[in-house]
Amino acid sequence: MTVYSAPIQDMRFVLDQVIGFDQEIATLPGYEESTPDLVDAVLEEAGKLAGEVLAPLNQVGDRQGSVLENGVVRTPDGFREAYQQFVEAGWNALPFDPDYGGQGLPYALSTAVTEMWNAANTSFALCPLLTQGAIEAVGSHGTQVLKDLYLGKLVSGEWTGTMNLTEPQAGSDVGALRTKAVKDGDHYKITGTKIFITWGEHDCAENIIHLVLARLPDAPPGTKGISLFLVPKVLVNPDGSLGPGNDVKCASLEHKLGIHASPTCVMSFGDDGGAIGYLIGEENNGMACMFTMMNSARINVGLMGLSTAERAWQQALDYAKQRVQSADIAGGREPVTIIQHPDVRRMLMTMKSQTEAMRALLYYIGGAMDTSRRHPDAEVRERAQGVVDLLTPVVKAWCTDTGCEITSIGIQVHGGMGFVEETGAAQHFRDARIHPIYEGTNGIQANDLLGRKLLRDGGANAKAFIAGMRELDNVLASANGQHLPVIRTTLIQAIGELDAATDWLLETGPKDIHLAASGAAHYLNLFGTVTAGWLMAKAALAADAGSREGNGDARFYEAKVTTARFFADQFLTRAAALRRIVTDGGETVMAMTEDQF
Amino acid sequence: MTVYSAPIQDMRFVLDQVIGFDQEIATLPGYEESTPDLVDAVLEEAGKLAGEVLAPLNQVGDRQGSVLENGVVRTPDGFREAYQQFVEAGWNALPFDPDYGGQGLPYALSTAVTEMWNAANTSFALCPLLTQGAIEAVGSHGTQVLKDLYLGKLVSGEWTGTMNLTEPQAGSDVGALRTKAVKDGDHYKITGTKIFITWGEHDCAENIIHLVLARLPDAPPGTKGISLFLVPKVLVNPDGSLGPGNDVKCASLEHKLGIHASPTCVMSFGDDGGAIGYLIGEENNGMACMFTMMNSARINVGLMGLSTAERAWQQALDYAKQRVQSADIAGGREPVTIIQHPDVRRMLMTMKSQTEAMRALLYYIGGAMDTSRRHPDAEVRERAQGVVDLLTPVVKAWCTDTGCEITSIGIQVHGGMGFVEETGAAQHFRDARIHPIYEGTNGIQANDLLGRKLLRDGGANAKAFIAGMRELDNVLASANGQHLPVIRTTLIQAIGELDAATDWLLETGPKDIHLAASGAAHYLNLFGTVTAGWLMAKAALAADAGSREGNGDARFYEAKVTTARFFADQFLTRAAALRRIVTDGGETVMAMTEDQF
Repeated sequence: MTVYSAPIQDMRFVLDQVIGFDQEIATLPGYEESTPDLVDAVLEEAGKLAGEVLAPLNQVGDRQGSVLENGVVRTPDGFREAYQQFVEAGWNALPFDPDYGGQGLPYALSTAVTEMWNAANTSFALCPLLTQGAIEAVGSHGTQVLKDLYLGKLVSGEWTGTMNLTEPQAGSDVGALRTKAVKDGDHYKITGTKIFITWGEHDCAENIIHLVLARLPDAPPGTKGISLFLVPKVLVNPDGSLGPGNDVKCASLEHKLGIHASPTCVMSFGDDGGAIGYLIGEENNGMACMFTMMNSARINVGLMGLSTAERAWQQALDYAKQRVQSADIAGGREPVTIIQHPDVRRMLMTMKSQTEAMRALLYYIGGAMDTSRRHPDAEVRERAQGVVDLLTPVVKAWCTDTGCEITSIGIQVHGGMGFVEETGAAQHFRDARIHPIYEGTNGIQANDLLGRKLLRDGGANAKAFIAGMRELDNVLASANGQHLPVIRTTLIQAIGELDAATDWLLETGPKDIHLAASGAAHYLNLFGTVTAGWLMAKAALAADAGSREGNGDARFYEAKVTTARFFADQFLTRAAALRRIVTDGGETVMAMTEDQF
Repeated sequence: MTVYSAPIQDMRFVLDQVIGFDQEIATLPGYEESTPDLVDAVLEEAGKLAGEVLAPLNQVGDRQGSVLENGVVRTPDGFREAYQQFVEAGWNALPFDPDYGGQGLPYALSTAVTEMWNAANTSFALCPLLTQGAIEAVGSHGTQVLKDLYLGKLVSGEWTGTMNLTEPQAGSDVGALRTKAVKDGDHYKITGTKIFITWGEHDCAENIIHLVLARLPDAPPGTKGISLFLVPKVLVNPDGSLGPGNDVKCASLEHKLGIHASPTCVMSFGDDGGAIGYLIGEENNGMACMFTMMNSARINVGLMGLSTAERAWQQALDYAKQRVQSADIAGGREPVTIIQHPDVRRMLMTMKSQTEAMRALLYYIGGAMDTSRRHPDAEVRERAQGVVDLLTPVVKAWCTDTGCEITSIGIQVHGGMGFVEETGAAQHFRDARIHPIYEGTNGIQANDLLGRKLLRDGGANAKAFIAGMRELDNVLASANGQHLPVIRTTLIQAIGELDAATDWLLETGPKDIHLAASGAAHYLNLFGTVTAGWLMAKAALAADAGSREGNGDARFYEAKVTTARFFADQFLTRAAALRRIVTDGGETVMAMTEDQF
């Protein structure tokens, strides 16, 4: 069995010294209770539940999977109990509105805690992730009646939520969906089939609140004719008690490459005349409501990339410290632990540096979300929202691609044992592979970055963000700790490449969108690499300062600076090549005719 | 069910126009029968068996897997019959010595045919791959008695072979093995346990010839004290008939991430007093004999990287041409096939160009093997052997890493369907993941390239090879077809980066082997990328010429040039970054102490 121990020291470091949690987040109105002591207590308690309860169920969940029997989905042994424990301890409520029973803690802190759930057991963690999306959609767009009836139970986690978008002919193209909604008094009757519904049916909660996209009879075609409905599995009486079952059922489960414990359902609505649903938001405005869920879900999927990478990293490191094989390459008779071998060390440093870079990126966007919601100054809120919007596709795609890479390296560190399922390294590799796909494939993210986030405002937001990163150069210029000058040179070069690629896309996009889009994925990769490298440079500066001031763990600080330098040396240096591929590499992407393939 | 259709047009193109099969290989002594007509017939017939018999068993094999019941390994439905068909048609004998029933055809041609078996059914193809290794070891180092008794049945494929190296404490470090051999008259008694033995036990052949590394009682420690033994599953009487069973059994099978149909066995030798084995080569000289098998096996594993990529590519292309989703990014109301979307096209071009680049590389090394064995001029033979030695680790590691990347892209092209096992894309991804591990991990290959292939001869061989690649510049200089000037500029830059990295390693290796080895994997990646890019440039030149001369399929030629340009634009351009990581990126790889992790 593989173990997981929450990396609280690094989490704390990123929160405190990279994103300025105490100074900038905990001081926001409504977050006053997030004192350092509370943060410590939250991280420690969450770490216990993750390490002691959820992590041991990860491999069991993979082996047993969730199974559908006579219309009922049975989750693997231990999942029901673990979910009860999770709910009873109040973890589901962490970031939500205290008016509905939430704890109102910052998203930045919630991000760290959610990282733990995902790392411990990514299949399990998907359930509250979907609930969170439902809470946000109902909270932002639902009527007061819906809020009063559903939010409390969703915030507590007693009921769980789902997102029902996909149909066989409507995947990335949500607008192609055909599920029907017909008005029937104060509610609607929903009929249709949805696929790929995560935790669409299960035995961990007494009710499941499906958020379903459907089309009214007279709706315009495409995404402009889509409405969002709340469709409970079990109908809810006005007094909040459970009524009869709704016309909703799980028709089948997918047999998947990974996340076996997470039931991926084909959901059938309205087989017996129509499932009862309640409109959320306006008719035909469902896409806007859905984006509320989708954007936070996208960031959360990026967080899964980090989390699975962290789990794979812990396991690989543990193996590399224990496995004795071959003498040192410089000579010697006795075999050594494989962590001593340069190529194994290179793999470990890659895992470590990329994982820490992802963490910095995700907590940073978590902090920006808090600022965008709570800061008293509207201009600051808007700027923070701009950062969230810009980085959402970057975080989703870059962290999930990187997560896949890291889990693959995790297998490689184990050698032959990595390919044997018993070891557990392979599960992370399989589980992680869904992340670049769901919540909008990474190709969709790249198009989103290019189209909605870059071209739509003529690059104003992106250019401002890049200029902001460039300001770190002054700080780095006055720092002279070990590795910092090299980090500075590498970072400033890389920012220059990102800037050049941005300018080229701004110029090319309006003239030739196919050519621009041919480089969109590389551009996103460049954007993620540079932003992560910028945050690693900030981390190095903070660690260097902490080390000089003698406040904290000197060995940890030293490792942090070394890791940031490694990231600069081995990843930021790729910026020039990525820029070149974006600006000069697209000519042949669309050149061949279909019959030439 | 996914289909496979052998890419005979591209195979033929690479053989004829990139590696000069007709002029340079088929003219070698002993290969005179390899006329164009024969080559066509071989490729066509092999393509039929691969596409019609082996490919349909691929998914069945994955689902059922091989199972161990009462000491007997049962292969999945259809495997026995397919193997009989394979043997009866004489496919196993293709490249081997006619004195023992082989067909004596060139390795370059055998490489193309083996690509088909691997692409159609990689689990199946592992069985003859291991047999081939056994044939080479017995053929090169066995006594005449052993050759007469075993080679005929191994060449025909009636008996299969295995390689027994690994033990729990002896993986990459073969020298740490403990299996014992004690002389007992004209044979030896073998006792010990071997793990990860591919096709170690199965029901497809009446005998299995295990090649086993073991240690004599008075042997020196490490690899200098290892001897190689032939240990048949069933003892063979002097007249060639089968005698009693040997003291060998399969103790268990591994439950693996992929290649489920290929039984990966724990083999137990000598539980009842000692398995009878026969010495191959000299006592304590087993490693040299084993390298005979291992080098060809390493190239064959590289070939698996290509093959699985080809299979994944065919499937992704087929899906991309059929799946209709979303309107064109430039506008329009109607949804289009996803091959029209720039980011999907980028993925497809990546798959296509990398797969074709791997094919060129593998057939090129196949041709070099033929030249090294058959050319009348000793100097030419030696030079060709130098190419084979140098490129063996490159082909093994670069093609398997690339193969994993391609199978992952294959999933991505399918979107959500790629994560569902039924689709079949996920199987390629799982199957391919073993390739960077077995036959020496890719880290071992990187060390081999650096230590044995580069530093040992002071770079003479590598520098000569690089100089040879550089000669293409003159040819490209006089070519002015579309894309060729850009390919030329990019290639010559990339060769320069490879040369610079080589010089740096030659200088640094003797002074600081840890620092040099820290960049070995990146150097290997650089070496593979540049060599593949050089061969793609050769392909572009040939296609450009063929197109001008009007001999052949003009659309195919045009696509070939476009694909080579794409490879230059998107992969050769990474050479500068890789060089920089090798020469400037290693400082922090070994910098942290173990307790800082």
